[in-house]
Amino acid sequence: MTEFFLPELPRLLPVAYHPKATQIEFRSNGWVRSHLADCFANEEDLLSFLRQRNGLYGPLTVPYTDEQRALNVADWYQYVTVIDSFVSDRSALGADEAGARDMFADIMDDFHGDGGGREDFPYGTAGKELWRRISPGLSPHQIRRFAGALEAFLRGCVTEIRFKLTEQVPDYETCMSVRLDSFGCDFIRLMTEYAAGVDMTGRDRLLADVHTHCMRQMITVNDLLSWRKEHAQNDKMTVARVLIEREGLGLQQCVDRLRELVDHHERAYIAARDEMLNGRHGKRADIRAYLNGLDHLIGGSAEFEYLTPRYFGDGYVWDGSTSGWISLTAPVTRFRARPHTDTGTESSRPQATTPSMTRS
Amino acid sequence: MTEFFLPELPRLLPVAYHPKATQIEFRSNGWVRSHLADCFANEEDLLSFLRQRNGLYGPLTVPYTDEQRALNVADWYQYVTVIDSFVSDRSALGADEAGARDMFADIMDDFHGDGGGREDFPYGTAGKELWRRISPGLSPHQIRRFAGALEAFLRGCVTEIRFKLTEQVPDYETCMSVRLDSFGCDFIRLMTEYAAGVDMTGRDRLLADVHTHCMRQMITVNDLLSWRKEHAQNDKMTVARVLIEREGLGLQQCVDRLRELVDHHERAYIAARDEMLNGRHGKRADIRAYLNGLDHLIGGSAEFEYLTPRYFGDGYVWDGSTSGWISLTAPVTRFRARPHTDTGTESSRPQATTPSMTRS
Repeated sequence: MTEFFLPELPRLLPVAYHPKATQIEFRSNGWVRSHLADCFANEEDLLSFLRQRNGLYGPLTVPYTDEQRALNVADWYQYVTVIDSFVSDRSALGADEAGARDMFADIMDDFHGDGGGREDFPYGTAGKELWRRISPGLSPHQIRRFAGALEAFLRGCVTEIRFKLTEQVPDYETCMSVRLDSFGCDFIRLMTEYAAGVDMTGRDRLLADVHTHCMRQMITVNDLLSWRKEHAQNDKMTVARVLIEREGLGLQQCVDRLRELVDHHERAYIAARDEMLNGRHGKRADIRAYLNGLDHLIGGSAEFEYLTPRYFGDGYVWDGSTSGWISLTAPVTRFRARPHTDTGTESSRPQATTPSMTRS
Repeated sequence: MTEFFLPELPRLLPVAYHPKATQIEFRSNGWVRSHLADCFANEEDLLSFLRQRNGLYGPLTVPYTDEQRALNVADWYQYVTVIDSFVSDRSALGADEAGARDMFADIMDDFHGDGGGREDFPYGTAGKELWRRISPGLSPHQIRRFAGALEAFLRGCVTEIRFKLTEQVPDYETCMSVRLDSFGCDFIRLMTEYAAGVDMTGRDRLLADVHTHCMRQMITVNDLLSWRKEHAQNDKMTVARVLIEREGLGLQQCVDRLRELVDHHERAYIAARDEMLNGRHGKRADIRAYLNGLDHLIGGSAEFEYLTPRYFGDGYVWDGSTSGWISLTAPVTRFRARPHTDTGTESSRPQATTPSMTRS
């Protein structure tokens, strides 16, 4: 079985694009070219990355902030997505755990450094350039947390490389725990605070349930919508592979189970958020702004994951489809109303829905 | 010589994206798939068209209108761009003048028809679907003009096909006159009125200078930025080819001359517009709204022409560059700071500029 039916996800949270989303994406592409081009083997690899439209992840997850902060967030997410791409690439960072460790140590050294670092190390110089723009908008507590968040992300990347090179598939809770790091959950929280102009340092216990379900929802949506790519790249650290290889589910069972998990965590997030809003701290402007930010983070992240050629193949163009039969092996995904292998008998699945284009 | 230096254009007019530009583009892509997919030979050709990002032409040229009108305009421009693509394709509509004439007559019949027309003729059914959405926003005068505008566009397309099949290059004024039709200037004006919610019927004499320079500016920018594509497709109806093959200019001379023409018409447009604004009708809200619409039309059209893979090659991703050395033969354009063939000696041209990404 290399084909599955992607059901509609609940999508109960708001989806908004920053009003300057398109311009921010183009400008952010310019930043990637000017600061990170040397990380790519050649121009074609750089363009292939830019075609993934990663510059929209920022505008979709912080649509409410001012243009400059949205651009800074967009550039940050492009930066870590470049790193993530090479972690998944066995001809690059993913080839060698020790090599990746060394490079990540250099990034952290540059991050902590006082203007030192090699000028010919683009991950270092680009990171510092971003940091110069972002750090003035953070409190000293947040600045300290940021270094830890970057370190956690890079540590998660190393763990992913190790599991892949040793052909291990983790169990469910190990996977979730590594994914919290490698998905960048700590800096995702910081980016949300930065965009909302609030400081949630010290609020971990208060926000524990909200965060747990927010992050598990996002990781599960990601692992569902990126399964075609992760499957092709033989990545181990994905809930989809855990369910199939550790828990023995078939492909469609796995997809249906992921959908249930998304549904569960999304509703649990909303319940935890509403409990906070109605509780003792629910009138605080900073708490409300942050929770609104998390809503958009969840809604925007899923939207990005539908639209990106990163997950659906270089050359893919989104047409608004969010459900349909998907092949794991087609070079470019098409959301089909019927399975490709359908021989004409009626499918037991519902017809894929396509959004109405004629609402007027 | 297959390489030229693209100089900065004046770009004196405002550039704005509709605040919902990204969503409109995705929804419009869905409309193209659901209504026009059968016009394409296969899925790959459809995706190749969608990768050109033609759905942004509407949001860039009518950024000030409401979301539904902007979507309708976006779909309209996608529709005529599909037709234009096949006119330039010698394996499709461009193969045969009589065949194109017949098909265009069918489109016009469907357009004038009262619900008749073949259901298996997507150009007809898609056109009618658009018309159902757009016509309620037009006056009876504008509805009459719209039919004429569509007819003029299709007539211009036929003339372009004839010149290409007979290997003729027109003179400058013939080219400009055909381009007024084939560029769709009449419906571009109507789309601007529609988006601004005004009716300029009967104002032709009043607006003569404004229109002349607006349209000549747009055609000249288009012929400059699309030259790589038109050159490859051997299209005859472009000012670039006229200057080279009829007037004997070299490639770089031609580009420099086109830049001068853009500069001339852009400044002449602004002068004519300002004269109107300061004149007897300059206080009228409808005139002011329409002129504001033309400003955005000019500014947005050029922006689109920088960003589209239609002109710079399938796989191109815009990074905000608006100047640099460009190859006519590279499959995907890269704006280079120095000519590709540079042997290390200093260029006599200025360095290409790249927009600053670090304004904070």
